[in-house]
Amino acid sequence: MAGRPKVRTERLDEAAIVSAALQVAQRDMDSLTMRSVSAELQVSVGALYKHVAGREALIALVVEKILRQAPPVSPEVGDGWLALRAQVLGLQALVDLYPGLDEVVIAHSPNSPTANELRREGITALQAEGLTLDEALRVYRAVTYLWLGARVAVRGRARNDADMDTFALALDVLLGGLKQNIAECRDSAAATNEVGP
Amino acid sequence: MAGRPKVRTERLDEAAIVSAALQVAQRDMDSLTMRSVSAELQVSVGALYKHVAGREALIALVVEKILRQAPPVSPEVGDGWLALRAQVLGLQALVDLYPGLDEVVIAHSPNSPTANELRREGITALQAEGLTLDEALRVYRAVTYLWLGARVAVRGRARNDADMDTFALALDVLLGGLKQNIAECRDSAAATNEVGP
Repeated sequence: MAGRPKVRTERLDEAAIVSAALQVAQRDMDSLTMRSVSAELQVSVGALYKHVAGREALIALVVEKILRQAPPVSPEVGDGWLALRAQVLGLQALVDLYPGLDEVVIAHSPNSPTANELRREGITALQAEGLTLDEALRVYRAVTYLWLGARVAVRGRARNDADMDTFALALDVLLGGLKQNIAECRDSAAATNEVGP
Repeated sequence: MAGRPKVRTERLDEAAIVSAALQVAQRDMDSLTMRSVSAELQVSVGALYKHVAGREALIALVVEKILRQAPPVSPEVGDGWLALRAQVLGLQALVDLYPGLDEVVIAHSPNSPTANELRREGITALQAEGLTLDEALRVYRAVTYLWLGARVAVRGRARNDADMDTFALALDVLLGGLKQNIAECRDSAAATNEVGP
């Protein structure tokens, strides 16, 4: 193949670039570069730069592409707690599909528009259950700890059944317990108000 | 100070090297190298290599040094669940003392003898409460997810009050809920046995 000119007949656009970047990244995240992606696409590196500013921008696009596949928190789901549970389990299953990309998704989530949209949806679902913003943020933070930690704990290998079972159980225990804790705090606050002066 | 000969009057040993490495690492983890530590100690890089094999070995020693400060799970604490809770909160408080070193401690824990000893102690404490090894491992795994995630979520900044409150609450909810879950599973297993043929 040496010396053979690079040929590409399809139109080069962002979607094609992100798809190629995902292919490269799933084989080996470290090899995801503008050069390797242009080779995957059979275009020149210069052609790639017309669409993407550089490696960091490429990684950000890959993270958005993955997170946009997360199931949306549908407002039709009656219970906001169950909606959040479904969102988190959906996210875990999604990241399982991209073993080499865990780290990148975690590292880039704080600045990802799609991750922020998912967060907003989750918090809104909890507020629809009557939680204050502070309470909703606390629940969301606790759940985020659990799912981030579940990824970090298996860094560099696929999740096995024990990992998945533990995570699902811990998530249910955490959500159920936090729900009960919030209800109890309100009951005791109400009781205090009743006996107050 | 340029040209002034390096002077060190105290004896160079592993403890002195690890202390110096901790100083350097707390300022900036990336600058922790054999060269920067030898400069901190005012010794030659060659002298350092007589005691430590290289940067990775240096980092491993730093992680051991930090983790060895974790409060041991004392067998005198009556309740294994409370002992585990104390261990985890102690670990979190400890890692808070070394903001630049979170990542390193997390990354190296799987291979750290001291981390493995802490894990063994925690699991033994749960077994002393009547948990099977599988049950104890599941609880330990869930708690590990939570504390790892709580570190990763605040990557690059100090934990604030909301982070600490959420973590403490989530830990209690998780431990209390898992304890109850295990008890309920046993009750239902016992009930099934009673009505069995």
